[in-house]
Amino acid sequence: MRIIILATFLLWISSSAADAQKNLTTAELLAKSSPNDWRNLDPENTVYLELEKGRVVIELAPEFAPKHVANVKALAREGYFDGLAILRAQDNYVVQWGDPNAEKPEARKIKNGKATLPPEFERKIDSKMEFTRLPDDDVYAKEVGFWRGFPVARDPKSHETWLIHEYGMVGAGRDNAPDSGGGAELYVVIGQAPRHLDRNVTLVGRVLKGMELLSELPRGLGPLGFYDKPEQRTPIKSMRVASDVPANERTNIEVLRTDTFLFRQLVEARRNRREEWFVRPAGKIGIENVPVPVRVK
Amino acid sequence: MRIIILATFLLWISSSAADAQKNLTTAELLAKSSPNDWRNLDPENTVYLELEKGRVVIELAPEFAPKHVANVKALAREGYFDGLAILRAQDNYVVQWGDPNAEKPEARKIKNGKATLPPEFERKIDSKMEFTRLPDDDVYAKEVGFWRGFPVARDPKSHETWLIHEYGMVGAGRDNAPDSGGGAELYVVIGQAPRHLDRNVTLVGRVLKGMELLSELPRGLGPLGFYDKPEQRTPIKSMRVASDVPANERTNIEVLRTDTFLFRQLVEARRNRREEWFVRPAGKIGIENVPVPVRVK
Repeated sequence: MRIIILATFLLWISSSAADAQKNLTTAELLAKSSPNDWRNLDPENTVYLELEKGRVVIELAPEFAPKHVANVKALAREGYFDGLAILRAQDNYVVQWGDPNAEKPEARKIKNGKATLPPEFERKIDSKMEFTRLPDDDVYAKEVGFWRGFPVARDPKSHETWLIHEYGMVGAGRDNAPDSGGGAELYVVIGQAPRHLDRNVTLVGRVLKGMELLSELPRGLGPLGFYDKPEQRTPIKSMRVASDVPANERTNIEVLRTDTFLFRQLVEARRNRREEWFVRPAGKIGIENVPVPVRVK
Repeated sequence: MRIIILATFLLWISSSAADAQKNLTTAELLAKSSPNDWRNLDPENTVYLELEKGRVVIELAPEFAPKHVANVKALAREGYFDGLAILRAQDNYVVQWGDPNAEKPEARKIKNGKATLPPEFERKIDSKMEFTRLPDDDVYAKEVGFWRGFPVARDPKSHETWLIHEYGMVGAGRDNAPDSGGGAELYVVIGQAPRHLDRNVTLVGRVLKGMELLSELPRGLGPLGFYDKPEQRTPIKSMRVASDVPANERTNIEVLRTDTFLFRQLVEARRNRREEWFVRPAGKIGIENVPVPVRVK
């Protein structure tokens, strides 16, 4: 009897809470977030791309691309990227950085990192992995959702999961051979999600802050958006692992957790927009249109 | 008997032609295009947005938004936009232009055009309308495909069709009231397709050339990406209907027709990419990732 009353009471509590938040907008939901809804970045899996105009903060995903992430960190730690440049800006596609002389004798030498690696296009699903599934379908994959803030796809038949190519995702450029990438040349998506790249190239992380420093860059006029004149390239001051940067010089940001009730409410508030401006809520959402909020502490 | 032979012969011809083109890439298919695969723009439904750095060519879609298109042309013809400015650049969303003083007493006066119009969010399907349906599903709509080069969605139950919000599409900004837009303030999508805007705001056309002049603009730092300092705005030299521009000053571009066998082959070449670089063709495609090629004559 006591158990039934308790269960009824809990049901009442939770449905009242849900009712109360039913019509909240994204902004209103975020205003109600508790500290526990947010997580800190792991400085050991965060890199800073430093440009003249500011810092780009990238969160790495070692659970999806362990070898590439380790290599990007090794390259950053040996100063490989320092003084290299942004080489390519293709409209509605990618911005890419690396060594302008990579194919020439004067190419920057790699010391501790590796020039190339076997691909890490997908991994097996581990039942312990966080996965907040989106309630809507996806054109390209059987299931899509979020793993620790990253957009991921799943194939329940093959038990494989992979990171999704969308705005702000960072990957390791490669040539035609699947094992010709490794992280010495990195790209970031600056336009419509190029989902045809999924499982064709290794994604290593995503930009959490400073995206406009890359998306605003003048588009390159050479083939594939490569700059045809060296002076059009943007120099890279440095690329550093956050844990190697003094604590007081780090960018202290928090990312909304995606394994929470609040995040599921947020997804619902995006599927059916409650802002007064909307006259016809979509009732659905594509994975690429779900924002994962970030805030500076 | 003769009919059967003829039919068999035609079948053989068409399947040989299809076989021959089965593994062609987008570039190879385009190289094989005939003049009839391309169409000219109607200068009466083309507008030029002239900026210091160059010209943005916009094709209008009067079949979807007749009142708004007529009004944008009327406003362009009375010089309404000349000397106004790009007011907003919100990262991964839109760039918007209009009168910085629209809410103030010194607002630019509208002479022949209209300040606002009833919404044109969708229209009834006309059985005579061209529609090349995409073979894949869409997250947001029952059917998607192309009408004269424009990405469109359809609901076969309600017999309605509407233009799709994706990269380069141009719409008429509005306030909360659905009839508060009209074309005096225009926006263009510069990031991930904001499909939640479909049927919530009137689209009038799309950018065919010069998109990078808008997508490269520095993002605004005010709320919603509006520029917080007037000097950050980009001045508009003029906006003109192409037919009012001397023929030798027009941008002579052709757009690939989307009602052809070639275009369907092109869609297939994007669903299953044949370029050597790809190791795992997606087998599907989202409408927003299908390019409609444009060439300068």
